[in-house]
Amino acid sequence: MVYLTRRERFNAAHRLFRPDFTDEQNLEVFGKCSNPNWHGHNYILYVTVRGNVDPQTGFVVNLSTLSRVIRERVVDKLDHRNINLEVPFMQGRLASTENLASAIFDELREAVAALGAELYAVRIEETENNMVEFRLEK
Amino acid sequence: MVYLTRRERFNAAHRLFRPDFTDEQNLEVFGKCSNPNWHGHNYILYVTVRGNVDPQTGFVVNLSTLSRVIRERVVDKLDHRNINLEVPFMQGRLASTENLASAIFDELREAVAALGAELYAVRIEETENNMVEFRLEK
Amino acid sequence: MVYLTRRERFNAAHRLFRPDFTDEQNLEVFGKCSNPNWHGHNYILYVTVRGNVDPQTGFVVNLSTLSRVIRERVVDKLDHRNINLEVPFMQGRLASTENLASAIFDELREAVAALGAELYAVRIEETENNMVEFRLEK
Amino acid sequence: MVYLTRRERFNAAHRLFRPDFTDEQNLEVFGKCSNPNWHGHNYILYVTVRGNVDPQTGFVVNLSTLSRVIRERVVDKLDHRNINLEVPFMQGRLASTENLASAIFDELREAVAALGAELYAVRIEETENNMVEFRLEK
Amino acid sequence: MVYLTRRERFNAAHRLFRPDFTDEQNLEVFGKCSNPNWHGHNYILYVTVRGNVDPQTGFVVNLSTLSRVIRERVVDKLDHRNINLEVPFMQGRLASTENLASAIFDELREAVAALGAELYAVRIEETENNMVEFRLEK
Amino acid sequence: MVYLTRRERFNAAHRLFRPDFTDEQNLEVFGKCSNPNWHGHNYILYVTVRGNVDPQTGFVVNLSTLSRVIRERVVDKLDHRNINLEVPFMQGRLASTENLASAIFDELREAVAALGAELYAVRIEETENNMVEFRLEK
Repeated sequence: MVYLTRRERFNAAHRLFRPDFTDEQNLEVFGKCSNPNWHGHNYILYVTVRGNVDPQTGFVVNLSTLSRVIRERVVDKLDHRNINLEVPFMQGRLASTENLASAIFDELREAVAALGAELYAVRIEETENNMVEFRLEK
Repeated sequence: MVYLTRRERFNAAHRLFRPDFTDEQNLEVFGKCSNPNWHGHNYILYVTVRGNVDPQTGFVVNLSTLSRVIRERVVDKLDHRNINLEVPFMQGRLASTENLASAIFDELREAVAALGAELYAVRIEETENNMVEFRLEK
Repeated sequence: MVYLTRRERFNAAHRLFRPDFTDEQNLEVFGKCSNPNWHGHNYILYVTVRGNVDPQTGFVVNLSTLSRVIRERVVDKLDHRNINLEVPFMQGRLASTENLASAIFDELREAVAALGAELYAVRIEETENNMVEFRLEK
Repeated sequence: MVYLTRRERFNAAHRLFRPDFTDEQNLEVFGKCSNPNWHGHNYILYVTVRGNVDPQTGFVVNLSTLSRVIRERVVDKLDHRNINLEVPFMQGRLASTENLASAIFDELREAVAALGAELYAVRIEETENNMVEFRLEK
Repeated sequence: MVYLTRRERFNAAHRLFRPDFTDEQNLEVFGKCSNPNWHGHNYILYVTVRGNVDPQTGFVVNLSTLSRVIRERVVDKLDHRNINLEVPFMQGRLASTENLASAIFDELREAVAALGAELYAVRIEETENNMVEFRLEK
Repeated sequence: MVYLTRRERFNAAHRLFRPDFTDEQNLEVFGKCSNPNWHGHNYILYVTVRGNVDPQTGFVVNLSTLSRVIRERVVDKLDHRNINLEVPFMQGRLASTENLASAIFDELREAVAALGAELYAVRIEETENNMVEFRLEK
């Protein structure tokens, strides 16, 4: 089994908060990440697909195609955006990295299957110290 | 001459725009960086000081002290903040990386001199591809 | 299933040797890593936990809490220390990276469970070329 | 179970193409990677083995030995070489990263077993954005 | 004075050799870098310009424009190419990193001036261990 | 003027202390870096030389030769060593990174001149946050 990973990047603003909390409650639970004036990150996204190698091409999937799919479905909707306010697939969800990884997985699963591979993992590095991976159940 | 560099990090939201421009004008000049809903970055800050080595300590300056000065005067005011709205030393200035590097240089110059060294450069990596350095004139 | 990784760092001295070996025997088996005068590393530690996302917070675990637990139980006992002489959970064990990863896993397993997640992996990068991961059996 | 990873590097030229295709057909399928005049990469290779820790040494395998095996069997045959023309274990195969990872896995499997561990994964970073991993079936 | 750096990347094949040398002579002087079948690298290019900050925009130069200029004049001619055979500005020159940095500096100097800044340095990382910088004389 | 940089690495133990201080005094001035049981680092060393490009070879200096010189004169004496106890050119000096950079500069200056170039800078990264550069006076 071969695993293929494509790295993409996006810069976005976000805020961790619950609208049913006061700012004080949000501060208590989410700390400085709840700043009402937003903060932001250079998110690094790793999308891992797996499958068999096509003997015609030597590829699991064509990386140019995979990169285009990730950009069209995910990165273009996130880059230089406010995750809480502007990203369709994050509406109504807390803008945590866990939820973001899960939502990106959902956005990509069928499109990767259509390329003939299986989406295996979506990994996001929010900072150099904090990383989240949503991985296919095994 | 010995140059000593300390690396610090902060995550912040910002927007490139001029209040005397319409959103359309801002978009034309600043592109997606002008998004009214903000975006953000993991900024990496390198502060370089220079001076002679103290024979008593083997140090140009004590790095713990330098790190504390940078955090108190700069990083604590920027981290998890909105650069346009919340950072005192950026009020009334376009939130470009060039202006940010210059403003940080001004915030640190005297404090570094008080430690017995000369502030030589402030370098900011906004993304892995874009870097700005404000350097002492030579 | 969501995997959350926190990166921490520590600098330490160590030496690979068996007290029941002569220095010559240690040199033969462990090479320059057996130097009786010690050497050291900037160890990079990745702690990966897994679990379900709490719908109240969007978190698997709160990363601030996880970071505090890792620092209190592991990093504060290793940083700027001699692994052979000063680290309680490495006493009587060869100071190899394999043993260190295993010992850190043991130090953290219950504390992570108390946070409501499962400790999945402890990964240590001893140098940019050498890495060890102790992973939950599957 | 402990996983041990060794990182090695090699610089090589290659070209993606099928000899049964015209240059035009190769260009259509493989894009600029099919340039008849070759291009090249700084390949980064991660070899991961797994096994039990030897209580005598604290090692899964001796990393110096593992590094030597990887260099003799793989890196010395690839470094500063043309993958299509000069690498014995890639003859007759499309020079894709998927095929290269698979071929390196085959080159190393028995040699790692002879060291008393199991070869678990061969990971190649072709660029900072494109990575392939050939992993033992589970 | 503010220094602005843009990072770009290209993958290329090359060979160090003199056509007036035999392969044996080339091997003696250039070692494995003279392999007649080529080898290649992931080159990382840092272009540094300097100038005053435009008070209208907060920029030394617009980074999007600078990036476009670098790609059009340099990267598009190098990426996935053979430096010896296909790069116009390297014809007749030994394909060393020193010569490449110098040639890229020449390709960019006027175009950067036309943007209202001064080209200060062209830095190339050929591998993680080898870097060359061509810098404006001072 | 062309600047050529070679990166090398070494792992070593050290301790910041003055023998004329008590352990308590050393702790007050040098903090945890004065631990009598040592600690250590993965030091990264960047040696930058400058000169004209030899038209015969396209090189400022041959990087293989430069690397060999650095390893023989510097790295082999530091790697897997105790800087305070075992490194000839650090005897009688405080084992600070500033002093280490300065001493390495002295060790290399003549040898680089013998290669036909000028030693310009010695840069040491002690940790990812702390860097020192000893640079030729200008």
